[in-house]
Amino acid sequence: MLAIADVSRETAQKVSERCGIPRVAEHAEEILANPDVEAVLVCSPTETHADLVVKAAKAGKHIFCEKPIAHSLPKIDQALLAVKDAGVKLQIGFNRRFDANFARVREAVTNGEIGKPQMMHIISRDPAPPTISYIKVSGGIFMDMTIHDFDMARFLIGDEVESIYTAAAVKVDPEIGKAGDLDTALIVLQFKNEVIGTIDNSRKAVYGYDQRVEILGSDGAIATANCYPNQAVISNAYRIQRDLPLNFFMDRYTDSFVAEMRAFVTAVLQNKPTPVTGIDGRMAAVMGLAARKSFDERRPVRLEEVAQA
Amino acid sequence: MLAIADVSRETAQKVSERCGIPRVAEHAEEILANPDVEAVLVCSPTETHADLVVKAAKAGKHIFCEKPIAHSLPKIDQALLAVKDAGVKLQIGFNRRFDANFARVREAVTNGEIGKPQMMHIISRDPAPPTISYIKVSGGIFMDMTIHDFDMARFLIGDEVESIYTAAAVKVDPEIGKAGDLDTALIVLQFKNEVIGTIDNSRKAVYGYDQRVEILGSDGAIATANCYPNQAVISNAYRIQRDLPLNFFMDRYTDSFVAEMRAFVTAVLQNKPTPVTGIDGRMAAVMGLAARKSFDERRPVRLEEVAQA
Amino acid sequence: MLAIADVSRETAQKVSERCGIPRVAEHAEEILANPDVEAVLVCSPTETHADLVVKAAKAGKHIFCEKPIAHSLPKIDQALLAVKDAGVKLQIGFNRRFDANFARVREAVTNGEIGKPQMMHIISRDPAPPTISYIKVSGGIFMDMTIHDFDMARFLIGDEVESIYTAAAVKVDPEIGKAGDLDTALIVLQFKNEVIGTIDNSRKAVYGYDQRVEILGSDGAIATANCYPNQAVISNAYRIQRDLPLNFFMDRYTDSFVAEMRAFVTAVLQNKPTPVTGIDGRMAAVMGLAARKSFDERRPVRLEEVAQA
Amino acid sequence: MLAIADVSRETAQKVSERCGIPRVAEHAEEILANPDVEAVLVCSPTETHADLVVKAAKAGKHIFCEKPIAHSLPKIDQALLAVKDAGVKLQIGFNRRFDANFARVREAVTNGEIGKPQMMHIISRDPAPPTISYIKVSGGIFMDMTIHDFDMARFLIGDEVESIYTAAAVKVDPEIGKAGDLDTALIVLQFKNEVIGTIDNSRKAVYGYDQRVEILGSDGAIATANCYPNQAVISNAYRIQRDLPLNFFMDRYTDSFVAEMRAFVTAVLQNKPTPVTGIDGRMAAVMGLAARKSFDERRPVRLEEVAQA
Repeated sequence: MLAIADVSRETAQKVSERCGIPRVAEHAEEILANPDVEAVLVCSPTETHADLVVKAAKAGKHIFCEKPIAHSLPKIDQALLAVKDAGVKLQIGFNRRFDANFARVREAVTNGEIGKPQMMHIISRDPAPPTISYIKVSGGIFMDMTIHDFDMARFLIGDEVESIYTAAAVKVDPEIGKAGDLDTALIVLQFKNEVIGTIDNSRKAVYGYDQRVEILGSDGAIATANCYPNQAVISNAYRIQRDLPLNFFMDRYTDSFVAEMRAFVTAVLQNKPTPVTGIDGRMAAVMGLAARKSFDERRPVRLEEVAQA
Repeated sequence: MLAIADVSRETAQKVSERCGIPRVAEHAEEILANPDVEAVLVCSPTETHADLVVKAAKAGKHIFCEKPIAHSLPKIDQALLAVKDAGVKLQIGFNRRFDANFARVREAVTNGEIGKPQMMHIISRDPAPPTISYIKVSGGIFMDMTIHDFDMARFLIGDEVESIYTAAAVKVDPEIGKAGDLDTALIVLQFKNEVIGTIDNSRKAVYGYDQRVEILGSDGAIATANCYPNQAVISNAYRIQRDLPLNFFMDRYTDSFVAEMRAFVTAVLQNKPTPVTGIDGRMAAVMGLAARKSFDERRPVRLEEVAQA
Repeated sequence: MLAIADVSRETAQKVSERCGIPRVAEHAEEILANPDVEAVLVCSPTETHADLVVKAAKAGKHIFCEKPIAHSLPKIDQALLAVKDAGVKLQIGFNRRFDANFARVREAVTNGEIGKPQMMHIISRDPAPPTISYIKVSGGIFMDMTIHDFDMARFLIGDEVESIYTAAAVKVDPEIGKAGDLDTALIVLQFKNEVIGTIDNSRKAVYGYDQRVEILGSDGAIATANCYPNQAVISNAYRIQRDLPLNFFMDRYTDSFVAEMRAFVTAVLQNKPTPVTGIDGRMAAVMGLAARKSFDERRPVRLEEVAQA
Repeated sequence: MLAIADVSRETAQKVSERCGIPRVAEHAEEILANPDVEAVLVCSPTETHADLVVKAAKAGKHIFCEKPIAHSLPKIDQALLAVKDAGVKLQIGFNRRFDANFARVREAVTNGEIGKPQMMHIISRDPAPPTISYIKVSGGIFMDMTIHDFDMARFLIGDEVESIYTAAAVKVDPEIGKAGDLDTALIVLQFKNEVIGTIDNSRKAVYGYDQRVEILGSDGAIATANCYPNQAVISNAYRIQRDLPLNFFMDRYTDSFVAEMRAFVTAVLQNKPTPVTGIDGRMAAVMGLAARKSFDERRPVRLEEVAQA
């Protein structure tokens, strides 16, 4: 049996209904104490993730945990250790791996449709920044937003990053800068297999949610376009035009949220490895730390400067 | 309360689950006799539609009926009369009106985004023909397949067709010809408001389900493209390529099936007119009869030759 | 040696310079009398074409003649007879055959890339109608504008049309109707090899010159898009947009005019058949006559009703 | 009068004919001594550029010089000084500024169509590397290939770059590495106006010449696609496909070569400033030096480390 709890009762209820989870509890402990519960979803605020993972692991539950596991490596490592000790499954919420576009890119790489990857570009821009109060507890753009792209980079290329160089600025809202964060970033990734990658992040693209990747390989290239609410093109006396792309993650990634949950349930029911592991969650966080360090020190930073593998 | 029954128990069960309908009965009569049932969905084989509509109407149930209502006008008129006499609601299953692409085209016409419509083209091709045994009971391509496009034409332009000219042939499979049917057709529609339209039908496009429309208006044009499983484009040494479009109606029109059902439920619950009426069902059938008559007689046929309005 | 003359001296001068033709004469007779002239280009107003072709043929010159050869079949046949008797080469100015898009479509058909053609659609819309005074001497839309599309249809499919059905109207400008002409037309072509085709013509598409074709074949389909002045796409807070397509034939078909002239010169210099013959010119005119007759009589018209092959 | 000379007589003859330049001389000195010659085109091998520019300037000729002016700053500065002293005009052959796509992007930036630029990406990949013998005298990828993109970056953004960070590798051909050069590079540009840019270079994209840019601005974004030989799309049982893009610079940039020459001639005839100056040539070379230094030292390099402005 699956269940979910904690955070507001309304949210829990909604998620429960959408995912067909029959039980909702007031506090996490209720669920963790229930021997009928096999697995839990940790979708609460980030600062509670690691503790909940530890508790759940100790209670012997399989765990789906939203990204990031924590903002600091010691907390992440503590959580991963608890999971390891308990021998339970852990899946991290990098839902974009399950998106049809990005899954197709990974498939092309795996199938050899484009040969050996050489260069990779990720464009990942939000339609509008979150509130400043959210920014303040977000862990910073690299840990909050880019973390998805760090995972995407590793997922698409199938290898680890060796060093990171960050160019970044505050261009969207000076309040974000006052909160100690950045809103526009270009991150260069040097992979161990010598692929060179970039991530382009902006907290605000006025035309909406911009989520694209492209990879150049020795035998070809693959690139994805954005997803749109319809395929209609209007021609008038002024221009050829179409409607704006799907606006944000709830529209753009709806199917991927369903797919990641299916994958987790399947892993639990069939006792298979989860497709996105605790190590995946840790590596993305390490990259986030290195990206910030690179920006602060204006130089490329090797991941091993930030954390041992 | 909504319910559905008849046809195989398995199908009923599946539809029931997918649409969240709590009750499944062995025979339609069970449901019709149940005073808790407010509305019924008639999704059985075409030859049973009209009788079920009559029975349901007499039982005071609101009715959603799959297209076509029947293959003959007298049967259709009989069903519509029963609905009228009972004062129940009737919605016909022209789900494509609820598709995001075609709804956007209609919106553009209604909003005046392209001015006054002048020409309209519908391309509607299946990936593969149905079985010959299905062809034999299908009522022919115009009543079975083009009927969706006849409705689409009326929906997009918002006016009635005056005359129809058909050019058609058997190109896909000679067995279809032996069964007395056609598999490739080009139909010219002359609307009362002087719009000129075409429908291009084929029972087999090897690249998959091809569902597009375009309209030329006095102030612009609108055209839709097909829908794809992903937005990835691969460039290799030979070509620039993408995957085939969504293969058939269950993939391509998934959302529109949900939306038409929502619209029906809303109409029933809020006691509003249904968005696709019995007259819509009748007019599409009249057009199917005129299209066949035009083919048989190799001349344009006025709808009034086939049926009084 | 090639040369051109008649019509205004300025135009002749300009064409001469553009095409690198060294000699310009005041009157056609001058050129025709010059034994150094091997071939002539007849690009004068339509009503003078046939007579010039006859004179040139009698003078033993090879001839490039703009479309149409004449508005009446007897005049066309008279010109073709003179050409035949003189044994000179004749090429008709159906430049669009030399356009990269349409040449690629023909190549796909010839190579079997789409299997056996089944359906063909041509969209051919001008950005704005010509003057009413031009309309009056134009020979009508079918002889003046659609004639290019009739030739395109024969070129793409590589077969002759058996019958034509026309739906047409005056939608752009009532003055065109008063001049006895039409400005919007949908023409259905039934080829001898059973391909079904359509031509969509409008004298005015506000978004510019719309020149597209598509063919459905047993093994695939091919479709062309319009040509644009640049490949830039702008995304803003309102829409995703691009600039309008190349506006009219001088921009859109520049390269094809050069290519058809090269082909003519090559045919003359190498003593090979011209790629667009007098018969091609005649067949397009026959189709124009049949299209008008079909409109007048509201019925499909067989080409043999209009002219013997 | 314009003229061109030196390099092989055949090449000179060809360029002469293509550009309509009436005079061809065996040696540059002949032309420079000719008082009828107002301007010269320096399109010889790079190592001869600076000397020819100096000689031409001393002879009082206006000068069009292919990129780069030289591989070393002192030689460039010597040439620019001679030009300045002589008061002649100098235009550098950054033809891509005259390409319809990139000119449109610059126009969008200038017009404010996308607001204030924030991020810029250039993708510039060749279909195949040059010969190793060419590589050896090329000045390296940054001076030979990227130099076009450095100029494009400055042209599009309309500002100077402050620092450069380079990630690069040998991925295409180890022989290129043995020759001391690189074949794959990702360069990060930090502009003085805080725009962050990237250049993606590869000596070999198997699908052909890949020449794209995109800019994100505060009010929108603009992106260009590649240019293709035709606009035909083929759908078959396996995929939706189109032909490869225009293969290399002679096809892709034909029009821009004509346009840059027109601009130079116009500048000379109308005594106006040339649109691409010696400073433009110098700045691109400075960026090339900084890019290499960054790669060698694995750190971002400020342009002022390489050269005073």
